[in-house]
Amino acid sequence: MTSKYDVGLERRGANFRPLTPLHFLDRAADVYPDRTAVIYGESRYTWRMFAQRCRQLASALISAGIERGDTVSIFSLNTPAMLEAQFGIPLSGAVINCLNSRLDAPAVAFILAHSEARIVLVDRQLAPVAKEALRLMEAPPRVIDIDDPAGADFPLLGDTEYEAFIAAGDPSAELRWPEDEWDAIALNYTSGTTGDPKGVVYHHRGAYLNALGQIINGRMTGARPVYLWTLPLFHCNGWCFAWALAAVGGTQICMRKVSAEGMYEAISEHGVTLLCGAPIVLGFLADGAPSGWTRPAAPIRVLSGGASPPAPVFKRLAELGFEVVHLYGMTEMHGVTTLCEPQEAWDDLDIDERMKHVARQGVRAVLADEMIVGDPVTLQPVPRDGQTIGEVFMRGNIAMKGYLKNPRATEEAFAEDWYHTGDLAVIHDDGYIEVKDRSKDIIISGGENISSIEVEEALYSHPWVAGAAVVAVPDPKWGETPCAVVELKPGAPGGITEADIIRYCRERLAAYKCPRHVLFEPLVRTATGKLQKFRLRTHAAEQLAAKGRI
Amino acid sequence: MTSKYDVGLERRGANFRPLTPLHFLDRAADVYPDRTAVIYGESRYTWRMFAQRCRQLASALISAGIERGDTVSIFSLNTPAMLEAQFGIPLSGAVINCLNSRLDAPAVAFILAHSEARIVLVDRQLAPVAKEALRLMEAPPRVIDIDDPAGADFPLLGDTEYEAFIAAGDPSAELRWPEDEWDAIALNYTSGTTGDPKGVVYHHRGAYLNALGQIINGRMTGARPVYLWTLPLFHCNGWCFAWALAAVGGTQICMRKVSAEGMYEAISEHGVTLLCGAPIVLGFLADGAPSGWTRPAAPIRVLSGGASPPAPVFKRLAELGFEVVHLYGMTEMHGVTTLCEPQEAWDDLDIDERMKHVARQGVRAVLADEMIVGDPVTLQPVPRDGQTIGEVFMRGNIAMKGYLKNPRATEEAFAEDWYHTGDLAVIHDDGYIEVKDRSKDIIISGGENISSIEVEEALYSHPWVAGAAVVAVPDPKWGETPCAVVELKPGAPGGITEADIIRYCRERLAAYKCPRHVLFEPLVRTATGKLQKFRLRTHAAEQLAAKGRI
Repeated sequence: MTSKYDVGLERRGANFRPLTPLHFLDRAADVYPDRTAVIYGESRYTWRMFAQRCRQLASALISAGIERGDTVSIFSLNTPAMLEAQFGIPLSGAVINCLNSRLDAPAVAFILAHSEARIVLVDRQLAPVAKEALRLMEAPPRVIDIDDPAGADFPLLGDTEYEAFIAAGDPSAELRWPEDEWDAIALNYTSGTTGDPKGVVYHHRGAYLNALGQIINGRMTGARPVYLWTLPLFHCNGWCFAWALAAVGGTQICMRKVSAEGMYEAISEHGVTLLCGAPIVLGFLADGAPSGWTRPAAPIRVLSGGASPPAPVFKRLAELGFEVVHLYGMTEMHGVTTLCEPQEAWDDLDIDERMKHVARQGVRAVLADEMIVGDPVTLQPVPRDGQTIGEVFMRGNIAMKGYLKNPRATEEAFAEDWYHTGDLAVIHDDGYIEVKDRSKDIIISGGENISSIEVEEALYSHPWVAGAAVVAVPDPKWGETPCAVVELKPGAPGGITEADIIRYCRERLAAYKCPRHVLFEPLVRTATGKLQKFRLRTHAAEQLAAKGRI
Repeated sequence: MTSKYDVGLERRGANFRPLTPLHFLDRAADVYPDRTAVIYGESRYTWRMFAQRCRQLASALISAGIERGDTVSIFSLNTPAMLEAQFGIPLSGAVINCLNSRLDAPAVAFILAHSEARIVLVDRQLAPVAKEALRLMEAPPRVIDIDDPAGADFPLLGDTEYEAFIAAGDPSAELRWPEDEWDAIALNYTSGTTGDPKGVVYHHRGAYLNALGQIINGRMTGARPVYLWTLPLFHCNGWCFAWALAAVGGTQICMRKVSAEGMYEAISEHGVTLLCGAPIVLGFLADGAPSGWTRPAAPIRVLSGGASPPAPVFKRLAELGFEVVHLYGMTEMHGVTTLCEPQEAWDDLDIDERMKHVARQGVRAVLADEMIVGDPVTLQPVPRDGQTIGEVFMRGNIAMKGYLKNPRATEEAFAEDWYHTGDLAVIHDDGYIEVKDRSKDIIISGGENISSIEVEEALYSHPWVAGAAVVAVPDPKWGETPCAVVELKPGAPGGITEADIIRYCRERLAAYKCPRHVLFEPLVRTATGKLQKFRLRTHAAEQLAAKGRI
């Protein structure tokens, strides 16, 4: 029987519009036309100007032949053009693909070919890599050069410069809004710690909702949010913050290169209220405060992904006036899925006890819908004992559409209608999760699970360890055993031996968790700064075999 | 051609879930189990307890035979039961219908019958009206009594008391989440200034989005939002704030009766950060500050609908530490569609100039999608000159599904795929709108439009005018002419004449806008405090005819 609540009450233009973050741009231009939207060195763009430039970019792309569902890539640092692309490219009907500026030419070539990019916008400083990438391609896309003064020493690759390109765009042209909120808006390639990168496709609906979620996560409802772009925009479209900032009419400060000096200068000059970043950003802030720095009246919110900052850094940042919130996420979920929401009861804890709480990945964000930590096969939730390791599963409206042209990977990732993060975690009695390892990286020794992250944390606490990675190597007795690859700090005293490191670990970890082997060598990372542990495992096994150790 | 961005990338359980504000309850209970959710006199409920009670209510309703798509009504003041109903009723699969506590028995009977309510929850204090309403009905719904001590003098109507009813509910029973985000969640009857009330149906999607929007409008992303319930929950489900508060894990303070004393007590005792209400609430705050009141460190945000507060009230509230934001909306759009976003440039204006800006209805809220002020027939936007009057049209995801069992009214309201507000406004050069009148209430005199609101504002500025309403009456020469119905303040000096009032208006308004007739009598208002101008028009014409004036 049809309900009385459905008869004559269907969706229609008056009460249904596809969700998309692109409309936030219109509103910001209408409501805050004269407020500064973007600051870049000496340049300033108001929301009116910024919106006009975005519309011009969209119009110029349409004139250049871009059709709905095409891909337009951008290979740039955090510049105004990169921000404009977040709106201008999707407003042309195309899907925006931001390339990681640290990629090498073969990876760039792979992505441009796989995404079938029709146009790529290239910051001049990245022209050498782009040039080589284009040379590797059979059918390279058209290039629009972004002629930033910082790239003056580098070649121009295309026939058109960005400013000239958008100047030809008509800001009042009709643009291409999504026909359905499930339409793709963005394409972000994962860094590929295992094999070729996969293209994560975002939908307008998820991007809209995640932008609203970031307003809550970032506490951006103050009178005047000022956001510092320390997070690369090529990471999950800057965790969707460019769209969120438009929703609240905030001010954004672009930085080509993150440095302590640059950050503190921006904070002092522009009254930054919020920034995001990896632990390295926290390190810069903790170590780089200028002399005479005074705590701001209201703390500056810092959302930090990746490894949790060590207690002294956390403490130092609090003293300097930064309120750090640790979070966790992945490209497949728009970047932020959990955050360590602080509880009032933690305020009374001493710093060490407090760190145990705030260093966790936390609870699901408001817009992240559902999460379980469960058995990787049955998905049965693990007990909330802080001990039992399970895989983290997420689902909800901020999950990706899937992987581009990779149905097998999409089905695997979404098996059982949950997104399989591949991360292993425990869940504490208060419901906060703590990520222990990538499922691929867990070490199973004599039937015991050893978290490589836990061993790495012990190693990182050593005063002379600059970097550490722990991987499984074969062991005749235990099946697998931990092997540590350790990079010492420059200036470390000579004579630190394998036995020293193992002894150091023994003082801090249960014996079965301690590395049996230690290799001293520099750690090789990917363009996004990640260790490729599958490579390191093979490498460590080869090294140890060569030495007759295994 | 199918796009590569659609192949193998369809919606599925992992990346799509119907939007609904009900899930915010789960998260609040998970993340803030021990934080106070509700304060009511001496009672306290944590989010864990509150969520449990909501689930028990849902389970008990299901046990009582409630099916998906049924209506469950509640006739109550702002109590914990009223808050629990916002979650518990829709979690049973039913649509929640909150009855205005000021309605009379025939109106309650009409709504219970029209909505086909199966169960009605009745606060004991409202039992006399409810009893009479049920007596008027052929098939009255089952009654659950909410036995509040404040109603001890009144009868119990049903066979079950609320606490006993929910105690029998199973908090771990399986509940009924929406199958589609377009499913109905709530039903709110408009006050019916013209004829029978119309039942406005809300969908889960709109309620979810509007709740997120209120977090932004209310600046609720601080560490610990504390909300004071001065706005009746029967107005648009309290503008969706019960759902918004769950999303941010805030604390809510219930008040049965709004008074200056009660508000200031709650503010002092619980650190209120936000409240909403009609101008009367502002009046209480402005006039009722206790001696020794000191401004709070951070201003308390006040969202105020209805008529704009007079400048002295606004100024006084600012001095007392309240930051008032004027807004505008209607039941059909979830209550809040525009707000007067303050601009930095206004800070430097003197109070009178500033009032001209902040007293306007403002700009569309972030989640309100689209608005035009345009010709009522062609919808062609009027110029942004602050002079030309047009009708306000809205559209977007926070518009209602439509009117229950009233397809004709739905089609009329949504003609041309825009919601016709029936309100007349001008739009200023900065894009801010200023509502001038209901379209039905505009007076057309000699071809000129006269805003009844503008004339009323002039009358209200008179030191002895307590209330004023201006309506059109027939005029042989001008077609229509303004007639003012004026209620004088108690203690007004005798001898204030019609001529005095007209002269007063002449000093403030263009001559053609001044009332030609003035009637001195008390103003009769509806249960929601609105004037029924269609009745007043007839009444004024009769009075003047009886006096031989027209």
